[in-house]
Amino acid sequence: MKQRIAIVGLGLIGGSLARRLVNAGCEVVAWNHNDRPYETAEADGIRCVPTLAVLTDAKPDVLVLCNPLKAMPEILGALKPLIDPSVTTLTDVGSVKGMVREQVRAAGLEHCYVGAHPMAGNELSGWESSDPTLYDGALWAITVDGNTEYQRFRAVATMIVDHCANRLIVLDDVTHDRCAALISHMPHVISTAMINELVANPDRNIAAALAAGSWRDMTRVALTDPNRTRAMVEEDAANVEALLRNMANRLTLMANVLHGMTAQQGAPTAGDDKEMARFFVQGQPFREYKALAKEPDFAERCETAELSIPETGWQKMLLDSARRGEHIVRFNGYRQAMAQVRSSV
Amino acid sequence: MKQRIAIVGLGLIGGSLARRLVNAGCEVVAWNHNDRPYETAEADGIRCVPTLAVLTDAKPDVLVLCNPLKAMPEILGALKPLIDPSVTTLTDVGSVKGMVREQVRAAGLEHCYVGAHPMAGNELSGWESSDPTLYDGALWAITVDGNTEYQRFRAVATMIVDHCANRLIVLDDVTHDRCAALISHMPHVISTAMINELVANPDRNIAAALAAGSWRDMTRVALTDPNRTRAMVEEDAANVEALLRNMANRLTLMANVLHGMTAQQGAPTAGDDKEMARFFVQGQPFREYKALAKEPDFAERCETAELSIPETGWQKMLLDSARRGEHIVRFNGYRQAMAQVRSSV
Repeated sequence: MKQRIAIVGLGLIGGSLARRLVNAGCEVVAWNHNDRPYETAEADGIRCVPTLAVLTDAKPDVLVLCNPLKAMPEILGALKPLIDPSVTTLTDVGSVKGMVREQVRAAGLEHCYVGAHPMAGNELSGWESSDPTLYDGALWAITVDGNTEYQRFRAVATMIVDHCANRLIVLDDVTHDRCAALISHMPHVISTAMINELVANPDRNIAAALAAGSWRDMTRVALTDPNRTRAMVEEDAANVEALLRNMANRLTLMANVLHGMTAQQGAPTAGDDKEMARFFVQGQPFREYKALAKEPDFAERCETAELSIPETGWQKMLLDSARRGEHIVRFNGYRQAMAQVRSSV
Repeated sequence: MKQRIAIVGLGLIGGSLARRLVNAGCEVVAWNHNDRPYETAEADGIRCVPTLAVLTDAKPDVLVLCNPLKAMPEILGALKPLIDPSVTTLTDVGSVKGMVREQVRAAGLEHCYVGAHPMAGNELSGWESSDPTLYDGALWAITVDGNTEYQRFRAVATMIVDHCANRLIVLDDVTHDRCAALISHMPHVISTAMINELVANPDRNIAAALAAGSWRDMTRVALTDPNRTRAMVEEDAANVEALLRNMANRLTLMANVLHGMTAQQGAPTAGDDKEMARFFVQGQPFREYKALAKEPDFAERCETAELSIPETGWQKMLLDSARRGEHIVRFNGYRQAMAQVRSSV
C-alpha cells in the first residue's frame, strides 16, 4: 500500500525526495517557505499547499522535515498544534540527529518522532537542482531511542525501503552524530581549509591552473553553500572538534617526519622511515574494503540475513545489526526484515 | 608535421600518452621494464622495443620519461651513452620537477632536457588502466631554467598543443613544485590521513556505511597506490611539510573555535563568531573562480592573447604569462603563441 507523505521544504533534499516518492506512486503533499517551486513541483505531481495547516490536514502517514536546521524550532512550534499524532509520524533529514531530537522534544512532539538521515546530496542546493536519482543506491540512517514506538519506525522504514528503494541502518543519535562528523562534517571543514589555503597563497593562479583530479575532488564540498556547512559543523561541534584535533596531529606528525627527511637530505632516520611506512599502510583495510565494494556484482554477491525483530529491545538489536555491517533492504513481515551483509572495514 | 615520440614506461600516464599520440598520427616507439603490455600496445599501433638502445636508435624528436621517479637515476644513466642530443629532446612527466632536473644534471643530460608535468591522472595505475582520454582538456606545466634552449621547449610544446590537443603553462621548477605541493601532494597526505582516521575509529563499519559523496570524493586519492604517493611526497618534502603545518594550524584554529562554542552551549563569543565567519568566507574567491569556469561556454568565452616570444628572456616572459592566468593553446609561428586568458582567483 502506498503511503501519503508530507514534505516540508522543497530544497535539494526535500525536492528530490518528493519527486522520487511521486515516481514511486506515493501521494505527496508539500509546503515550502515560499511558493517559487510550486508551479514546476505541481507539474511533477506534487500537491503544493499554502500553509502548514493545510499540509497537516492532508493526514499524512509520514511528515518529513526537509527545511534548513536553523528553521527547525520555528517550524516545530508551528506544527505542534496542527499535527495529528494518531495518524502522522514525524521525521526529518537533518545531518545532525541529537540536536534535532532535542528541538523536537522541546516542541513536545517527541512521542511521534523518528530521526532519519539519507546519505545523499551534492554541492548544489534548491529546488532547481533537485533530482530523484540523487537517492539512487542511498543508505539512510534511522535514529531511535528507548522510547521510539516500533510502528513509527516502521512507517519511516517503509517509506525508505519500499518507496525510495533505499537501504537503511538503525542507530542511536550519539553514534550517528559521531560517525557523521567523521565521514561528512570534519571533511567539509578540511575541504574548506584547503580552499582557504589556496586563496592565501601568492601562487594561487598558477596553483588553480595546475589543479587536476585530486584537488577538484577534495575541494568539491567546499563549494557547498558555506552557511549550510557552518550550520552543520556548529550543530555537531564537539564531535567535529575532536576529529579536527586528531587530524591536526596526524598532519603535524607527517610534517615532522618530512622535516627530518629534509634535514637528512632525503635519507630518513630509521624512526622516520617507520613512521612514514606506518602512515601509508594504516588505511589499508579501507582500501581493501573499497576495492571489494567496487566489484560490479558486489551488491548481488552480498549474503543476506533474516532479522526477527523482538517486541522489546528492538532498538539495540537493530543497532547491533548495523555494527555488524548489515543493511536492511526489505521487510518480509511486520517484524521480519531482510538485511544485506556488507563487507566490513 | 607529425613528431616521432619515444616513451619510457607504459604505465597509466605513459600508456595513455602513447595511445593519445598514436591517435594523433605520431610515430610512437616505447620501451617498458617488462614486456607485459607489448602485445596489446603493438595492437594499438605503438612500436614496442626490447631495449633502451633500440629506443634511442629510432632517433625520436622527443623522448618522454614516464617511468616511476624511483627508477629515474638508473634509466638516465642507461640513456646517457645512447641518446643523440642533436636529434632528441629529453622530457619527463614526473610530479616533482626540481629533483628530476637534478637527476638529469647528475647524469650529464641537462643540455637536452625540458621538464614537463601533465595535470592528468586518476587513482588507477598500469597499462591496463591506460586511456587516451585521460588527457582530455589537460593542462601541462613545462619547466625551464635560464639555460633551456628554446627549440627544445618548442619540441615538447608542439607535442603537447599540436598532438595532445592540450594547454600548457611555462614555470620554473621551484614555482612548479610549490604549487604542485599545494594542489596535489599535500591533498594526497590529507586524504590518506582521513582513511587512517576512519580505520582507527571503533565505529568504522557504521561510518563506512554512512559515507556518501563528500567522503568518497575526499578519500579517492588515498586509494592510489600508497607507495607512489609516498614517493611523490618524499620528493617534495619541504614544500609539503610547510603546507601540512599551515593546514594543521587551520584545523586547530577551527577546533578551538568549536571548543569555545561547546563551552558556551552553542552561543559563540564575538571573537569566536568572527573567526568562524572568517573561516567560511575566506575561500570565496575560489568558489567564484570555479563557478565561472563551470559555465558551459567558459573556454569559448575566454579572451585570447597573442604572445611574441623574445629570443632572450623568453623563460621569464612565459612565466609572467602563466602568473597572469594565461594558458598557451596554439603556436602561430616559431615565436608566436596564442594564449587563452583564464579567469583569476
